[in-house]
Amino acid sequence: MSEPLFKKIVIFGVGLIGGSFALALRKANAVGEVVGFGRSTATLQQAQQLGILDRIGSDPAVELGDADIVLLATPVGQMAKLMASIAPHLGAHTLVTDGGSTKGDVVAAARANLGGKIAQFIPAHPIAGAEKSGAAAAQADLYQDKKVVLTPLPENTPEAVMQVRRAWELCGANVSELTPQQHDAVFAAVSHLPHLLSFALVHDLAQRDNRDLLLSFAASGFRDFTRIAASSPEMWRDICMANREALMEELGRYMQELEGLHKALAEADADKLEEVFSEARKVRGNWTGQ
Amino acid sequence: MSEPLFKKIVIFGVGLIGGSFALALRKANAVGEVVGFGRSTATLQQAQQLGILDRIGSDPAVELGDADIVLLATPVGQMAKLMASIAPHLGAHTLVTDGGSTKGDVVAAARANLGGKIAQFIPAHPIAGAEKSGAAAAQADLYQDKKVVLTPLPENTPEAVMQVRRAWELCGANVSELTPQQHDAVFAAVSHLPHLLSFALVHDLAQRDNRDLLLSFAASGFRDFTRIAASSPEMWRDICMANREALMEELGRYMQELEGLHKALAEADADKLEEVFSEARKVRGNWTGQ
Repeated sequence: MSEPLFKKIVIFGVGLIGGSFALALRKANAVGEVVGFGRSTATLQQAQQLGILDRIGSDPAVELGDADIVLLATPVGQMAKLMASIAPHLGAHTLVTDGGSTKGDVVAAARANLGGKIAQFIPAHPIAGAEKSGAAAAQADLYQDKKVVLTPLPENTPEAVMQVRRAWELCGANVSELTPQQHDAVFAAVSHLPHLLSFALVHDLAQRDNRDLLLSFAASGFRDFTRIAASSPEMWRDICMANREALMEELGRYMQELEGLHKALAEADADKLEEVFSEARKVRGNWTGQ
Repeated sequence: MSEPLFKKIVIFGVGLIGGSFALALRKANAVGEVVGFGRSTATLQQAQQLGILDRIGSDPAVELGDADIVLLATPVGQMAKLMASIAPHLGAHTLVTDGGSTKGDVVAAARANLGGKIAQFIPAHPIAGAEKSGAAAAQADLYQDKKVVLTPLPENTPEAVMQVRRAWELCGANVSELTPQQHDAVFAAVSHLPHLLSFALVHDLAQRDNRDLLLSFAASGFRDFTRIAASSPEMWRDICMANREALMEELGRYMQELEGLHKALAEADADKLEEVFSEARKVRGNWTGQ
């Protein structure tokens, strides 16, 4: 057998994102040993039983010096502290990537906490999962044909970016690159805003005296529109806070869009309504995404 | 064989709604003869070939006198003229119902055009279908376990309402009753507003110079949120115009909700965001609808 591309990877946070990364690299025969760290011993033991981990790590100082790839797959709010704790122990050739949904804040945390090791950090956002969470939900094909966005830093060498790209591609992902700022602006528009709007609609209805009557007549349109309002409040609070500036700009634009529609209704401007709806339908109909 | 409950029904507009009504009553052995009218001869012939119609009508004056139930399943915009044309020919025991998505405007059209026959009209809104249309999409179980809302008028006798309720129940529907005003307020909130918001988001993105980049990173949250933005622009223009007042009130409330969220973001009020998201998730999670 040929030598695996990565002799050792270390995962911090062995849930859906981290566990699936390990399983995918195993399936690709691209990894020698997988070591995991996490806050819950029970989760780590479960991950070991599921074949995600070879070993549960006990001391980062011992495990990080010879690691090829370190994946930070904890909630974004925990990353700054985690980065500070691992920075002194990273080996000279160890590369770090992450699975956070926002990038500007993660990059800021990295700059503040990785110090001279900043060039070894290649930020990533895998666009996968959401409904389920936890090690038990991890699967080797989670990233198959999904997008992963890298947001490389000026300090990264091309070789370092290429190596992290290889890792995600071996997981089956289609990897693209944006700057952290581009990333956050794009996802404010196509992901964070829709989540906020969906939460807002259900919250609006939830305040009514007749909410049970209203909800009893809600049908498939409501079902689809509000599916994402069942997402984790804590996770979306953190994403909205982390990407506040871009999200506020998107929300402001959207409120202007609604002002225009309110005006069209007030003026009984049927042509304007049809124009907006037709343009939307055309673009949505041509969308070839998931 | 026992006599069917309805010896003759007449359908105006033999598409998804009208065709499925006929097929469902046939399957329930509840109808003797089904006669159809429509603007397209090709559609009527297709409906006959599909076993939806026994005959294609040629003169309402001949067909309506002995009809038990007349279903108006045309677009709402055509109903006023249609009502005026059928009013003189309705038999004394003929009942009329409809399949329109809005009720205040249909009732107004009925009051203006059915004259002394207004007591024979029992308005209905079947909550089914949408993605597909046309006679070929009609199916006997379209209304099975779906909701149908009747909005009876003060002039209707209890017997007339009961008879129309029987017809929809024989189609498999769960029938409930609201006033036309209640109906339009409820559907403005749980259906018309979400459609407007979904169209608005896609239209907003469609205006951008970087729209292709944005859409290339849109994923499953966007997909679900915008599914209804692929709905018929003409139909939704008409629904929005027909239910303008109630929809403007809902849109105004929603814009206030967004103002509150914009303020929370501006003030970095994470607790407020989590409170809104948690309440929404709880209500959406407990929703037992479709």
